[in-house]
Amino acid sequence: MSNYFETIIKPRFSETDMRGHINNTVIPVWLSDGRGALCREHLAITQPWMVVNLTVNYRQELLWGSPVTVKIAVEKIGNSSISFVQEIWQNDNRCVQASTTVAALDMDTRKPVRVSDEIRQQLSPYLLAQE
Amino acid sequence: MSNYFETIIKPRFSETDMRGHINNTVIPVWLSDGRGALCREHLAITQPWMVVNLTVNYRQELLWGSPVTVKIAVEKIGNSSISFVQEIWQNDNRCVQASTTVAALDMDTRKPVRVSDEIRQQLSPYLLAQE
Amino acid sequence: MSNYFETIIKPRFSETDMRGHINNTVIPVWLSDGRGALCREHLAITQPWMVVNLTVNYRQELLWGSPVTVKIAVEKIGNSSISFVQEIWQNDNRCVQASTTVAALDMDTRKPVRVSDEIRQQLSPYLLAQE
Amino acid sequence: MSNYFETIIKPRFSETDMRGHINNTVIPVWLSDGRGALCREHLAITQPWMVVNLTVNYRQELLWGSPVTVKIAVEKIGNSSISFVQEIWQNDNRCVQASTTVAALDMDTRKPVRVSDEIRQQLSPYLLAQE
Repeated sequence: MSNYFETIIKPRFSETDMRGHINNTVIPVWLSDGRGALCREHLAITQPWMVVNLTVNYRQELLWGSPVTVKIAVEKIGNSSISFVQEIWQNDNRCVQASTTVAALDMDTRKPVRVSDEIRQQLSPYLLAQE
Repeated sequence: MSNYFETIIKPRFSETDMRGHINNTVIPVWLSDGRGALCREHLAITQPWMVVNLTVNYRQELLWGSPVTVKIAVEKIGNSSISFVQEIWQNDNRCVQASTTVAALDMDTRKPVRVSDEIRQQLSPYLLAQE
Repeated sequence: MSNYFETIIKPRFSETDMRGHINNTVIPVWLSDGRGALCREHLAITQPWMVVNLTVNYRQELLWGSPVTVKIAVEKIGNSSISFVQEIWQNDNRCVQASTTVAALDMDTRKPVRVSDEIRQQLSPYLLAQE
Repeated sequence: MSNYFETIIKPRFSETDMRGHINNTVIPVWLSDGRGALCREHLAITQPWMVVNLTVNYRQELLWGSPVTVKIAVEKIGNSSISFVQEIWQNDNRCVQASTTVAALDMDTRKPVRVSDEIRQQLSPYLLAQE
């Protein structure tokens, strides 16, 4: 998975639930953090996004007490949208597979705008290899 | 949408974000509340579930200040899994369409178990009509 | 407690933690909801506040599965600040006692402003009786 | 502040609210993280706690985009309780001052138990200097 960018997150005690594991509603928060770590912090992209689709496959329980790794790559860049694939790993297990599509947003009109050439170039190292 | 069960949720101020709308990570929490309102409160089902898949389409911004209606119906009941379709409405706009698949869980073994006949019967009024 | 305004909140499954009860960090969210139910919804006050102090005494565990009642009264109205007392009850037990001080905020300067006479009058029915 | 233990937290986009800053209800979550970083991660204390009191003074807005430092020291160790003082700093500003009292908990009886001598010794380097 050479094109993936990784960030580490420590599960919070308050993110557990009475089943003893991380509650399913926490995963979208970690996925959001993972996208922010790549786009805002690492690449310093300031373009506002709006999430338009989120798909999460929960493969294995996540627990409190061990850090998790959130991996992210770019699946596709459309006209005004970007599709990311993400994975969450804990203790060498791939616990979550997810994909998220975001639309580039003009904050004044709140309408989608074209993804700029600069952003396309910044994200290109993280594009999944095409067959 | 005669087979849908509905519950009302008031957006919380803390669920907004600096874009001025409800943050996307809040929606899975409301969807979870909607499933709980049908299964736990209305039908008194005590079977523990584990979410295995969550798909959310964000069609329109949700705002603080107006209640939302979470609608839920049953798309399919498999051997150990149940697929729900859900919608979130605010001010007559369908803002979110989502589907969630949960697996019936044996809490001791943490393995899936068959969905009981009693639960199949309890959920049957909410099954989407088949063509 | 004749001066108290009450609102009902249903605990969310995602608000439990691995100790099997409602996590302590959820209580400030419910207190915020209780203030909003009185000030925004019931009295239609639009003045923005900023929380400047929050004190919470956790007297008894809160559990998922039963609704809670959040009670609120006004302890004191200062020049630019208002102090609320709040309680959270579940199954006839007073589980939380709390007090919150908010400052009236000018959103342009982000500085405190005087609490208006209109707001003082609107809140007066909820003022705790003076000895 | 030589007795303070420090941990770094990155504010999450979902922790902002429509006022454009970090919502007040997020601070208790960060304080909880700060206590966990000292007690669970750094000292490997496994004793379960229950929060009995939380007092938060919000001195200055916290914003998304810069990391925060959560500082923690021990104010007092009682028979079954421990009082922590905590501060949250961002960009050289002390934005939050807080204190939290936790009780050591027997998970079977859910009653307070004496703080063990081992824990007293582990926490002693973080005791605020007495006058």
